[in-house]
Amino acid sequence: MPEAFIRKLSAKMAVYEKGEIRDVVERRTPVSVHEAIHKVMRRVVKGPSETTALKNTYGRFLGEDVIADHDVPHFHRSRYDGYAIQSENTQSASPEHPVEFKVIDAIGAGCTTSKTVHDGQAVRIMTGAQIPDHCDAVIMLEETKAFEKQGQSFMTVTKALASGENVIFKGEDVKEGTVLLTKGTYINPGVRAVLAAFGYSRVKVTKKPEIGIYTTGTELLDISEPLVPGKIRNSNGQMLQAQIERAGGKPFDLGRLNDNFEACYQSIAQALESFDYLITTGGVSVGDFDYLPAVYKKLGAHVLFNKIAMRPGSVTTVAEYNGKLLFGLSGNPSSCYVGFELYVRPVIRTYLNSPKPYLKKIRARLSVDFPPNSFTRFVRSNVSFCHGKWRVSPTGLDKPHMISSLVEANALAVLPGGTEGYIRDQMVDVLLLNEESQSSESL
Amino acid sequence: MPEAFIRKLSAKMAVYEKGEIRDVVERRTPVSVHEAIHKVMRRVVKGPSETTALKNTYGRFLGEDVIADHDVPHFHRSRYDGYAIQSENTQSASPEHPVEFKVIDAIGAGCTTSKTVHDGQAVRIMTGAQIPDHCDAVIMLEETKAFEKQGQSFMTVTKALASGENVIFKGEDVKEGTVLLTKGTYINPGVRAVLAAFGYSRVKVTKKPEIGIYTTGTELLDISEPLVPGKIRNSNGQMLQAQIERAGGKPFDLGRLNDNFEACYQSIAQALESFDYLITTGGVSVGDFDYLPAVYKKLGAHVLFNKIAMRPGSVTTVAEYNGKLLFGLSGNPSSCYVGFELYVRPVIRTYLNSPKPYLKKIRARLSVDFPPNSFTRFVRSNVSFCHGKWRVSPTGLDKPHMISSLVEANALAVLPGGTEGYIRDQMVDVLLLNEESQSSESL
Repeated sequence: MPEAFIRKLSAKMAVYEKGEIRDVVERRTPVSVHEAIHKVMRRVVKGPSETTALKNTYGRFLGEDVIADHDVPHFHRSRYDGYAIQSENTQSASPEHPVEFKVIDAIGAGCTTSKTVHDGQAVRIMTGAQIPDHCDAVIMLEETKAFEKQGQSFMTVTKALASGENVIFKGEDVKEGTVLLTKGTYINPGVRAVLAAFGYSRVKVTKKPEIGIYTTGTELLDISEPLVPGKIRNSNGQMLQAQIERAGGKPFDLGRLNDNFEACYQSIAQALESFDYLITTGGVSVGDFDYLPAVYKKLGAHVLFNKIAMRPGSVTTVAEYNGKLLFGLSGNPSSCYVGFELYVRPVIRTYLNSPKPYLKKIRARLSVDFPPNSFTRFVRSNVSFCHGKWRVSPTGLDKPHMISSLVEANALAVLPGGTEGYIRDQMVDVLLLNEESQSSESL
Repeated sequence: MPEAFIRKLSAKMAVYEKGEIRDVVERRTPVSVHEAIHKVMRRVVKGPSETTALKNTYGRFLGEDVIADHDVPHFHRSRYDGYAIQSENTQSASPEHPVEFKVIDAIGAGCTTSKTVHDGQAVRIMTGAQIPDHCDAVIMLEETKAFEKQGQSFMTVTKALASGENVIFKGEDVKEGTVLLTKGTYINPGVRAVLAAFGYSRVKVTKKPEIGIYTTGTELLDISEPLVPGKIRNSNGQMLQAQIERAGGKPFDLGRLNDNFEACYQSIAQALESFDYLITTGGVSVGDFDYLPAVYKKLGAHVLFNKIAMRPGSVTTVAEYNGKLLFGLSGNPSSCYVGFELYVRPVIRTYLNSPKPYLKKIRARLSVDFPPNSFTRFVRSNVSFCHGKWRVSPTGLDKPHMISSLVEANALAVLPGGTEGYIRDQMVDVLLLNEESQSSESL
């Protein structure tokens, strides 16, 4: 056991003997989850945009509004394979009295005709091709009968067509000037199709927020180190990197914070200059000689809160320094996971200009009983649709050390605190973790 | 109009005059959607694995089973901040008769003690630290009273502890030998945490299938070309690239196929050697001088089907050549989109070894009436949870040319064909497009 630790422990124990530990613990006044989210979101900034090739934009967020600079379609098109004609020429047509048309040209997709279509004339036209001037309807190929007369193509029509029949009109899909897509839109395959159709071979996207991650804890080994008694490998760093990527940010693993206070302070001060946000894991509890509160103090950072009425993750701390947010997540994997999803993810999505930064909330039947808890619980769960019902099942025993319970988790069941517990089949709120379509409303 | 086109058209019209066109059209016998999926999935191959750094694995699929090579935790740990003791020493403890312990050492997280704990002795222990030998319980700091006597640390306990109280046992989370993760698991943040905890600084993932995309159509302009009468920009290429990325594959945009049949044949034959799968868009209808059927014939490819009883996308064609699948998707954006999601996505997910290759299916209330249709419809829709109910709303007028209807689509409403239509508020099946948790069952 290091001497420094013994000295710190002794000092703490001395404080405890004087009956002060309980005071120190209780000095942290828990804020509600809503209040914590509100405090963080009030300080959120929106990110700048950068230009990139369209092919690199899947999963990015638009950095500009996209406005239609032309109608779609930008010409009248044929809905079917057939003949373009003037509808008034067909008004007397019937099976008994077919009307005859002379076929004067043929238009393939992407082509146009230079000919003028007169009464009694038709132009063979392919699906999607441009309707010739003076024509206002298309008769489907199957509804006509073609024949030849003196080396010329003809066809007959046996029914009357309405004006506009089988024509897709200019601007029918999108009118010029329409706002097609707003800044902050998530670029899915359909969005990308629209960008392509409007000629955006390069497009503005919001820069991904760059987020540094420092882990703390003398008990942590690097992933590639062999296990030794008393120590465990650092899993939070990799987990957070993936959570940042899922949220749309760019993670930077800064490794472990030095145990030396001054070095630790310097590292954090420097990281705050280099990154848009900084996440630390561990070192925020009152119970284990945590020095992050001291770092916040020396920086002169404003601590927004250091205790939240929630389980797990009640020690989640957020501080602000020079307009930048420092997220002090708990060192325990589940608390770290939940703290990220509730407080960091909406900050990232807002930075990306998304108007829907919050996890999507649905309701589902709880698969098990839950005992009462004074704080609101966020239970890592798997939500599924089975036999016509939505069911939410906790993925582990919900003990904070259960890393394995994170694997199957695709949702957080929300169980508000109170004196009564929850019973099986009760409907509860559920936050979806994997859903791109998020919500504009918090919890 | 190009002369070649006129010649082809004339030839076709000549055939039509002989009453043969209808035969050609009707020779395509539609298969059901289930049958089409089954035919494709019978020919699916599973991809090989490659090794990559853990930090690059978000969104990839595991290429190996991951088995616990040690217990988790791999030592008995303290659940709380407090003192490790032998529980039998507390059996007589009560508020009236506190039991006194001499504190002989302190163990921080990541540390161990070299001392032997005898009767009447305790070791101060932090959350998560290793329980000393001979101790079997931890009393929480708040439940003790510390004091000093002759320069030595002591504390008293006023309640009896059970053996194992506040101890997280070795292997309680995961037993050595447990299969933690199976090949084909999607690597989400929780999976990555588990991989880190088990020392996988490098991990086997399944290689992404490499998929070439050829678009066809004389009406298509490149994204960066200005609009001209009769032509439209190619949006399918970009859309498919994003769909492939969403499914987990690696897209390669091969541009437009040459109009010359021989050059086109050569391009396709060559692409089949270079890529795991090949997608073409357009050129599969009978109506528009499509030459892909001729290419399949010249290749000697086995056409699995060329007509499916579905809307849109009934002309979706899949062929097999030398164990590789060629997907002939329709050139119309919506048909192309739906064809990809129903037939290509499960092939990609199976290649990635996922046991759940199919889109997740839920049920929701239809927001509008729908007329009857003989073929099953897959309507691009937005599914949302609102006022306690799941609602599915078509995102456009469901006309095949409506690119803009793809933007808001996060689901496909499934409306089986039949003589009766659908009415508002009727419950229908819905396939989710953005959900990572997929299904092992088709439709």
